[in-house]
Amino acid sequence: MSQRDVHILSAASALPGPPVDNAALGRRFGMDALWEQWVDAFIGTRSRHLALDLATGTVTGSLADLAEEAGRRALKAAGLAAQDVDAVVLGTATPDRLMPATVNIVADRLGIDQVRTFQLQSGCSGAVQALDLARQLVLAGTARRVLVLGGDVIARFYDVTKDLRKAAPAELVSFVLFGDAAGAAVLSADPAPGAATVRSLFTRLVGLGREPGAVLEWYGPLDRGSDRPAATEDYKAIEEHVPRMSQEVLHELLDDAGWRPEDVALLLPPQLSGRMTALISKRLGLPQARDVSVVDEAGNCGNAIVFLQLERALAELGPGRRALGISIESSKWIKSGFALEGSAP
Amino acid sequence: MSQRDVHILSAASALPGPPVDNAALGRRFGMDALWEQWVDAFIGTRSRHLALDLATGTVTGSLADLAEEAGRRALKAAGLAAQDVDAVVLGTATPDRLMPATVNIVADRLGIDQVRTFQLQSGCSGAVQALDLARQLVLAGTARRVLVLGGDVIARFYDVTKDLRKAAPAELVSFVLFGDAAGAAVLSADPAPGAATVRSLFTRLVGLGREPGAVLEWYGPLDRGSDRPAATEDYKAIEEHVPRMSQEVLHELLDDAGWRPEDVALLLPPQLSGRMTALISKRLGLPQARDVSVVDEAGNCGNAIVFLQLERALAELGPGRRALGISIESSKWIKSGFALEGSAP
Repeated sequence: MSQRDVHILSAASALPGPPVDNAALGRRFGMDALWEQWVDAFIGTRSRHLALDLATGTVTGSLADLAEEAGRRALKAAGLAAQDVDAVVLGTATPDRLMPATVNIVADRLGIDQVRTFQLQSGCSGAVQALDLARQLVLAGTARRVLVLGGDVIARFYDVTKDLRKAAPAELVSFVLFGDAAGAAVLSADPAPGAATVRSLFTRLVGLGREPGAVLEWYGPLDRGSDRPAATEDYKAIEEHVPRMSQEVLHELLDDAGWRPEDVALLLPPQLSGRMTALISKRLGLPQARDVSVVDEAGNCGNAIVFLQLERALAELGPGRRALGISIESSKWIKSGFALEGSAP
Repeated sequence: MSQRDVHILSAASALPGPPVDNAALGRRFGMDALWEQWVDAFIGTRSRHLALDLATGTVTGSLADLAEEAGRRALKAAGLAAQDVDAVVLGTATPDRLMPATVNIVADRLGIDQVRTFQLQSGCSGAVQALDLARQLVLAGTARRVLVLGGDVIARFYDVTKDLRKAAPAELVSFVLFGDAAGAAVLSADPAPGAATVRSLFTRLVGLGREPGAVLEWYGPLDRGSDRPAATEDYKAIEEHVPRMSQEVLHELLDDAGWRPEDVALLLPPQLSGRMTALISKRLGLPQARDVSVVDEAGNCGNAIVFLQLERALAELGPGRRALGISIESSKWIKSGFALEGSAP
């Protein structure tokens, strides 16, 4: 392995519209107060942002819109201009189109040109995959500064006309769990005051032969009438595997960074739902770590969520303080995580 | 830049079913012999392979099926087993699903586990982007051997019930131009007899502010009724920009590799159609180079096509002989290319 260090100069986010709380969802879909209590107790996600008008179903923003906004903020926070960027990487499960790749639309809008761009098709671990790819470009000596983006917009799967009182729980829960957002970070070969240094980072496909825990379909013009369900989730498999996989990632990151559990000041846990996140953090049992969690307010916003966590973590990391991030993908199973250390101010 | 060399050990392809020639297309869609002559003269693509039954429209294979087959062949040709692979990269415009990423399904079927996987959402330059990403992993010291895959299956856009006699030429031409396929290559940090060494390779977003030359949409369950066209192409823009961009890539590769035009023994030109490929090769004017072109037989099969060209090029490269590959993406505009030199046998 190369000994070159990689630094995260900044992180930023973009959330569409005001937060939509469970009461607003309940009103829209004709659910009662008991339902709200059920969501609070068993899901623990209190609000989310949506790139659509809940009353009409009108889509109010695209992934490119959100990623552009987040990218602009991250560049500004890093004190960089478009021409300072050597490469752009975007992770998403829900690109605006199959072609052109959304990353190229975003780069163009930001005035970034003549550089490598990559768009990763990915689920929950996509943000870490995008950070990983950016880091590889720096380690290879190919780029010095990379704009890394992640986001998802689920409007095409969000049927506001649906009568949820007749829906199965597995269908209903999707409306509660997910949110729309984009996030961004700037990775650099050069340190800077207030940046974080990446001490370890990996993503790894695991679970040979294991069935996917989540599936999301797209349709072409010819299979619009398909009766394949668009989204399916195996929540039992997710609840069974994710906590154990999170522990494995934790131990691997600690080993690789040479840290003890009590060295970790901030934990960025997997963000499936407010409740599962809390359970996993508790099980990981880091004695000194405070949770940096956004899922209870922003929902599970896919490829954006690690950037939302990073934005908060960078603000409070401080010189020499240490943070661990863990992300598990349950579509086909992927373990991923990173270890960060605050730089001098 | 790191001085580490990267080597292509093998390349392989997978084509669904028998070739479908223009006469077969004409019969299916009620076009006459004049149409066939028109296609021969102005498109120059004589056949293609399709992952569907032309008579019934039934889909006969997925991207995962084709990529698995190509990947298995490439590994066998390189003399490697699943456990020898450190990472897998797939480029495609048409993933089987949004989640899980098709690369993870393919890796799983090949028995590859516990490694990094990446799936790039990309158009015609996706194969070079995938090779580039694999090369960055090797240059960074993160991987020694990477399985690189690329492919597209356009069945979801291919309406065999359509009466093409009433279709506009721009719609009609899509049926003629495109084909289905997957390809694969094995990149390695270590040389091997018969391998090719990568002397230069780049991909670069260009054309700041320029409108996309090709668009491909996907639909969610909620916008199946959308009247957005699924595929649109600006053939005038493509004809205007691609030949000039190809020349720019040629000069940049020659400069970077330190080669003269007469050093190039094999040219892997952009593969838009049989006719445009021939025009571009002629314009590039490499005095000693023989074309390695597959588009006239396999159609434009997107992310697969560079691998199909590589498979043929590797077979005849030989020690010290030099090859140049050029690929241009016209969705949002990307220049890409590579320079290869044959290793000792």
